Amino acid sequence: MSLLDKIKQPSDLKSFNQQDLPILAQEIRQFILQKVSETGGHLASNLGVVELTLALHYVYNSPIDKIVWDVGHQSYVHKILTSRREEFHTLRQYGGLSGFPKQSESIHDVFETGHSSTSISAALGLAKARDLKGESNNVVAVIGDGALTGGMALEALNDAGRLNTSFTVILNDNEMSIAPNVGAMASYLTKIRSNLRYKWFKKEFAQFLRSVPLIGEWVAGKLEKLKNSFKYLLVPGVLFEELGFTYMGPVDGHDLPTLISTLNRAKRLQEPTLIHVITRKGKGYYYSETDPAQYHGVAPFDIENGENTYNGKSVSYSKTLGIHLSKLGSIHPELTTITAAMPDGTGLSYFQNRFPNRFFDVGIAEQHAVTFAAGLAISGLRPVVAIYSTFLQRAYDQIAHDVCRQNLPVIFAIDRAGLVGEDGDTHHGVFDLSYLIHLPNLSIMAPKNTEELKYMLEYSLEINSPIAIRYPKESTKLAEELPSAPISCLNWEVLHKGQDIAILAVGTMVELALQTMDLLDKKGLNPTLVNARIVKPLDRSLLDKLAKSGHTLFITMEENVLNGGFGSSVNEYILKENNDIQVVNIGIPDRYIEHGSIQQLRYSLHLDPTSIASQIFSSTRKEKSHARLS
Amino acid sequence: MSLLDKIKQPSDLKSFNQQDLPILAQEIRQFILQKVSETGGHLASNLGVVELTLALHYVYNSPIDKIVWDVGHQSYVHKILTSRREEFHTLRQYGGLSGFPKQSESIHDVFETGHSSTSISAALGLAKARDLKGESNNVVAVIGDGALTGGMALEALNDAGRLNTSFTVILNDNEMSIAPNVGAMASYLTKIRSNLRYKWFKKEFAQFLRSVPLIGEWVAGKLEKLKNSFKYLLVPGVLFEELGFTYMGPVDGHDLPTLISTLNRAKRLQEPTLIHVITRKGKGYYYSETDPAQYHGVAPFDIENGENTYNGKSVSYSKTLGIHLSKLGSIHPELTTITAAMPDGTGLSYFQNRFPNRFFDVGIAEQHAVTFAAGLAISGLRPVVAIYSTFLQRAYDQIAHDVCRQNLPVIFAIDRAGLVGEDGDTHHGVFDLSYLIHLPNLSIMAPKNTEELKYMLEYSLEINSPIAIRYPKESTKLAEELPSAPISCLNWEVLHKGQDIAILAVGTMVELALQTMDLLDKKGLNPTLVNARIVKPLDRSLLDKLAKSGHTLFITMEENVLNGGFGSSVNEYILKENNDIQVVNIGIPDRYIEHGSIQQLRYSLHLDPTSIASQIFSSTRKEKSHARLS
Repeated sequence: MSLLDKIKQPSDLKSFNQQDLPILAQEIRQFILQKVSETGGHLASNLGVVELTLALHYVYNSPIDKIVWDVGHQSYVHKILTSRREEFHTLRQYGGLSGFPKQSESIHDVFETGHSSTSISAALGLAKARDLKGESNNVVAVIGDGALTGGMALEALNDAGRLNTSFTVILNDNEMSIAPNVGAMASYLTKIRSNLRYKWFKKEFAQFLRSVPLIGEWVAGKLEKLKNSFKYLLVPGVLFEELGFTYMGPVDGHDLPTLISTLNRAKRLQEPTLIHVITRKGKGYYYSETDPAQYHGVAPFDIENGENTYNGKSVSYSKTLGIHLSKLGSIHPELTTITAAMPDGTGLSYFQNRFPNRFFDVGIAEQHAVTFAAGLAISGLRPVVAIYSTFLQRAYDQIAHDVCRQNLPVIFAIDRAGLVGEDGDTHHGVFDLSYLIHLPNLSIMAPKNTEELKYMLEYSLEINSPIAIRYPKESTKLAEELPSAPISCLNWEVLHKGQDIAILAVGTMVELALQTMDLLDKKGLNPTLVNARIVKPLDRSLLDKLAKSGHTLFITMEENVLNGGFGSSVNEYILKENNDIQVVNIGIPDRYIEHGSIQQLRYSLHLDPTSIASQIFSSTRKEKSHARLS
Repeated sequence: MSLLDKIKQPSDLKSFNQQDLPILAQEIRQFILQKVSETGGHLASNLGVVELTLALHYVYNSPIDKIVWDVGHQSYVHKILTSRREEFHTLRQYGGLSGFPKQSESIHDVFETGHSSTSISAALGLAKARDLKGESNNVVAVIGDGALTGGMALEALNDAGRLNTSFTVILNDNEMSIAPNVGAMASYLTKIRSNLRYKWFKKEFAQFLRSVPLIGEWVAGKLEKLKNSFKYLLVPGVLFEELGFTYMGPVDGHDLPTLISTLNRAKRLQEPTLIHVITRKGKGYYYSETDPAQYHGVAPFDIENGENTYNGKSVSYSKTLGIHLSKLGSIHPELTTITAAMPDGTGLSYFQNRFPNRFFDVGIAEQHAVTFAAGLAISGLRPVVAIYSTFLQRAYDQIAHDVCRQNLPVIFAIDRAGLVGEDGDTHHGVFDLSYLIHLPNLSIMAPKNTEELKYMLEYSLEINSPIAIRYPKESTKLAEELPSAPISCLNWEVLHKGQDIAILAVGTMVELALQTMDLLDKKGLNPTLVNARIVKPLDRSLLDKLAKSGHTLFITMEENVLNGGFGSSVNEYILKENNDIQVVNIGIPDRYIEHGSIQQLRYSLHLDPTSIASQIFSSTRKEKSHARLS
């Protein structure tokens, strides 16, 4: 029986000898490596926090003590220790375990995460609620050095000093977010890590002072008076001390005894404490240690050689973006690109390699990214801000207030739009059309395939106002085979001329519409299919034309929530201009969508060709009966 | 001729002797005091930056050198010096000067602001664009200590160190945002200001070391090696130095010679520089110096006694909120309240006084405010987060990802919803319905009067999911006279039973609808008037009833953009359920709305009773002709 088998719940860990913990750590690492190589998931970050998570559950009493995992993709070890080992093979699968903390899975997941930098605010809320309720549990936030560059984490750090409530921030410093970290905070942490002068100084200088004859005492007296100033000399984490935290560290995040004794010390202190833990992302597996960015989030892979066993044939939109922007960069010297800690994920690394001076990775700081872009744009440059749909939510105000209000030509490349699959509810990009469509001055596009994305980028560079282009991770077969042509104005594209029914499909939905058309054909229906590639403004002239040419049923299709999305705009047009047209809005319903493969999720949401075809078919019958009645 | 008369553009200032500047400062203060007492506006912050603005324009060459004003309400002196003195009496009036920087007004307003904490990001963009274009102008961001607690400013500071481009941040430290500042950053700045030990230490300790016989040299050698560590001892602004800035200060912000020499030094340095300037908010006017919060934004007032000459009779929603929450606080021990630097503006100061432990002012940090509330809510408390509609935009992601996704009972009290009048396009609260309505689990309410706000708060405390209540600054006459009753479910209220036409009015629009009804009555129309106090979910059963009882024209009225707002939801209902109903959506059009009185703005947008009545009247004619045709 392995040690791991003995752990049914985290309290079982407390009966272990400290000497056994490294063996357990080894077993957990092996377990994660095995499982994630089969299911895919976040590998490197979890291998990095094995000892830290063990130490946390060894010292604290979850769920009475609350542990909040920032971002949450590093919660696998926590899940394994909190009664979810046996289900672990279902990770990230439809109906299985989520890759992020979920209250519905376990009482040990006290606060759900997914987006970065939320944990300190949440932990402060938990801590303050505890105080008000007169309870005495401990509260711990575990946050990476990457997430610490996010503005809201900094807001929370700033507020923590004032609230002066007992809680502990574990700074899991692995020198990376998904990509290596950038910015002053990262340099500062590097300095703490590497600069042994601090420790040397603390010891040597004190000894030296004591040894000076006669004046030693006098200096000691001065020192007492100067305590506050001297803090700068003696404490490496002065920045955190200034923010009101007791700083401890840096601590080797793979040294269990030191971790445990440090956590115990923090627990005893009962004040705002920051423990600086140095971990190695990907620890314990050759390939992920060597290239942690590559093994941040992985598809199933072969443990022996680290190679991807998933054999997708689709074209990546991100790659298309990066490569095409690199090309455009040489004819457009004003073209600049910005990412928030995702040079690889967004494909901008291609541009970065070619034009390092015109590329900016601002770190996990979406708000700053957008207003920085506004500053570039107002100076005559053309910034492309490439951020995932779900993370761009962080910059809603900056898009509205700084870019659209000033009508600045910033191009938003919105990646991972629509359902994203296995990452689930915190990551689906299904709100962007709704949070953007009501902003004045903004045009919104969605390409049907990667070729069209290129033309959209070219077009965007020519017009003098803000543009958002939203697209999914990967291309689809039928849509990818369709020809595309340069875009010269904000109009839609008729892909097939039919009759009676007009299908208006946005982006990813063109593929689904094509599949649906086949099924409708078998039922004797021959709808017109429109690639509604411009979500805003609507192509009113085509809408008029469709209405005049006898189309009496419009089907809107979008991979976005129905409320306030593309369909809503079409509805408004119909009610204003052509009240005799029936409309069916197809999209994401008004609830948060779980995790699973995109395919499974679409089935569950009736966003599959069969369901859509039958919905359209029943609408035509309803429409006919309606026509007979009137 | 006064000195001020000699300044047609900022370059005229350069011919002044430094000795004349204090006289000029005095003239400007008098000018601002006089004008703002007549027009109303931001008084205290502008009186505080008179010398600072003079020094900036004395040292820099605007518009070649770029000055970005964070928030921008402190740009009056800048406006006066940049050719807008003669129009200054039109400040904040419809068609007149804006109270914030506006590109359309002057080439000296290089980047528009309004929301807090954007200036460093924008200035970095301007600086980096300058570098890329091979130009050599200076870039300056002027940011208050309050705005510096906003996450995006901290993101930008963090990024600045890495970008390593020449620009200057002026930290205008007046120890306040609108209310006194909170948080660790504020304490830190206070320490710098008050702690002269730093300066003493720098001098004394160095002298002392030199005086020690024999070992002095050895120590000096060590010191050189320990330079980085010693920086902590010698520099008060170590926190900023750690972030990669050269720190200068603190400087007395009313001492012109020192300001000028410091700015000149920063200009020569050509690196990221932070100048810490201490100013006194409200400087030079007895009443505003004594109570700067009260004189932050003012209505017209009497200079002699500082008293408000504006005599409004309406009831304030903010005050109602604060007082009623204070009452509810004693029966609901779980009730807690949170503001982002607006205890007075939101009315929460009433609650604060009564329950100081259950009140949290997190500073200008809307993101943190919301996720902190999520932490409280998940622990069983009931937080009310009171933030202005336009500022809550900052927390869109936290509302979506942390509150609504986890379905937590956080109550959002959204103040200043709808048109806000004189503050203009950066401040109108006309997007909230659109950025909230598509979020699952969230209910949205809008009271018709202050009495109904109380019942909504009571109802919200009873249900176990997130709720947003949006309301304007002040009540209106007709609506305030309407009776209100406790709310027991999410239904609408029929205010008048009529026929054919159903007016569905949200919040502030109830007043307008009442006025419109009178006009329609004269045209022989007798619409049903509904107080659509629940924006989400729709009261479908009442909608069904209206449709069944012969209402064939629905008028939706909301003080929100039409895209994706309340009207959109009703449209979706109609198209799905009752395609025979005509609908007219009345609301804010798809463009940014300028400043002016709410009354004037409504007229310009055809949101006045006469325009609305005639729009409804013509729709009834259209509807009739439509009925004849079919």
